[in-house]
Amino acid sequence: MNNNSPSTSAATSSPSGAGGIRVFSPATVANLVCGFDVLGLCLHEPYDIMDVKLLDEPNIIVRSADGYPLPEDPAQNTAGAPLIEMLKEVDENIGFEVLIHKRIKPGSGVGSSAASAAGAVVAANHLLGNRFSKEQLIQFAMFGEKVASGVKHADNIAPCIYGGVTLIRSIFPLDIIPLTAPNLYVTVVHPQIEVRTADARAILKQKVLLKDAIKQWGNVGGLVAGFLKEDYDLIGRSLEDFIIEPVRSMLIPGFDELKKKCKAAGALGGGISGSGPSVFMLSKEEATAQQIAQIMAAIFTRIGIDFHTYVTRINGEGVKVQQ
Amino acid sequence: MNNNSPSTSAATSSPSGAGGIRVFSPATVANLVCGFDVLGLCLHEPYDIMDVKLLDEPNIIVRSADGYPLPEDPAQNTAGAPLIEMLKEVDENIGFEVLIHKRIKPGSGVGSSAASAAGAVVAANHLLGNRFSKEQLIQFAMFGEKVASGVKHADNIAPCIYGGVTLIRSIFPLDIIPLTAPNLYVTVVHPQIEVRTADARAILKQKVLLKDAIKQWGNVGGLVAGFLKEDYDLIGRSLEDFIIEPVRSMLIPGFDELKKKCKAAGALGGGISGSGPSVFMLSKEEATAQQIAQIMAAIFTRIGIDFHTYVTRINGEGVKVQQ
Repeated sequence: MNNNSPSTSAATSSPSGAGGIRVFSPATVANLVCGFDVLGLCLHEPYDIMDVKLLDEPNIIVRSADGYPLPEDPAQNTAGAPLIEMLKEVDENIGFEVLIHKRIKPGSGVGSSAASAAGAVVAANHLLGNRFSKEQLIQFAMFGEKVASGVKHADNIAPCIYGGVTLIRSIFPLDIIPLTAPNLYVTVVHPQIEVRTADARAILKQKVLLKDAIKQWGNVGGLVAGFLKEDYDLIGRSLEDFIIEPVRSMLIPGFDELKKKCKAAGALGGGISGSGPSVFMLSKEEATAQQIAQIMAAIFTRIGIDFHTYVTRINGEGVKVQQ
Repeated sequence: MNNNSPSTSAATSSPSGAGGIRVFSPATVANLVCGFDVLGLCLHEPYDIMDVKLLDEPNIIVRSADGYPLPEDPAQNTAGAPLIEMLKEVDENIGFEVLIHKRIKPGSGVGSSAASAAGAVVAANHLLGNRFSKEQLIQFAMFGEKVASGVKHADNIAPCIYGGVTLIRSIFPLDIIPLTAPNLYVTVVHPQIEVRTADARAILKQKVLLKDAIKQWGNVGGLVAGFLKEDYDLIGRSLEDFIIEPVRSMLIPGFDELKKKCKAAGALGGGISGSGPSVFMLSKEEATAQQIAQIMAAIFTRIGIDFHTYVTRINGEGVKVQQ
């Protein structure tokens, strides 16, 4: 595990040049087990690096530092669309140029598009003297999610911008409740299979049993209380999803075995990250988190699916501006 | 409003006699708006007074001090059934005699049966040297709820025994999370109509829309966070029920108008207490809470339904043993 902070561990050393800044925009876990669509958390790693410059003309330019193909029209880009929205609120003849070093693999389920959108607006806001609130930045960044998935959701953007664990109490009107940043280790496995967000949504039933919904909101209440009271056992007991996981886990080979073995090895609990295919587990101790990574690796090796595991921590800061 | 504590305001002055104790067992509000089946809170008033004596024979006697008819078989009585369960765990040749001064009107929706059950077990436990935990007492007391409504639920018993606001994360296995006792005023109106718990349950749909369930668990998370962070505005924003209230409020004439006017007058929010017919509203200030009582009175006066209103506070202590 790399415990360095982004500012010291960044492999790409070139800053963004005169008048520009560099931000580190982290991966996030949305749909936190029972907290489907409402709870998410911010990771230390991986993170994108974004170099953002102010332009003296009303133009948005988004480029990839890695040769990753991006739509030419900034309105079709997850970093560009939020900046277009932000500029609508700025009565000045300015624009932004964004260079993205993409480290978070798109489609892995840990908020790659949210990192682009959130990083862009935090950087641009910094260049404008931080005139917008975090809630406003989230409103702008959600236009990036709309480009990426067709839906203006804040599940990843909120923890990416606030850091820690966030609750989205309501999306219309937007009401974000930053909770806390518990001192927990996060083990993530990214099996190299494709789970399209649209497919993951399509298999969900539109109606659920009231008795299951009650169990679910009991757990959401327990999880929020566990985070705020720093009661790790309560967090563990509350990490159970009666509604989404039983359906979506079918898309991830080995999921049930993985979860069972990770919990037996001491993980507090975990589940599908976002709409998958990544799976995450929370642990109190780093040694446990590392052992969980071994268990995950053994399962996907046996099944014969390529995978990538990593151990990181909950990130209490969110998008970081290089000083 | 009577701000006195039960021990000084009790009108019935006779203690329970030699070898006995007196407890004050308060009313409770279950189904706290969005927290159907999981969140409840304890009130200062009204409360039952219960005089409990230890017997030197394995017998349970439950009597009414008010001439209120009680089943002769203690197993059919909400106070008796929990004591029978408790005695199964006691390896001594003892019993209990309970005299109930019933102040909480049965069927009003503020936990009358729970008060009998919870008061009995707390008193008996005190007489036995407090050998049982609160969780064990709840397990015993739930047998009283089963007598009363056919279902072993803890929605009222948990806040009655713990005080404050409680979360029932899970009922099987039982997992009670005491949250806090916010410094809030509670206005309650009891319209003199009958809403049978069984009927109130029967009109609920067995399936709910996932999108509504998500809004609901966002609010449960927000309400728990609001209580723990003492964020009264967040509590107010979270006091919205997308699932139960739209169905059950039809059983209470004037409900929609009442809620709208109370919120316009400054109440944080509120809803149906338990399965009704009582309706409660939370307020930060006593003056607001008193004004809410006037609004409630005006509505039921106009509709022509007899009613009773009272203003009280959240009770952080729960069942109180007279010292």
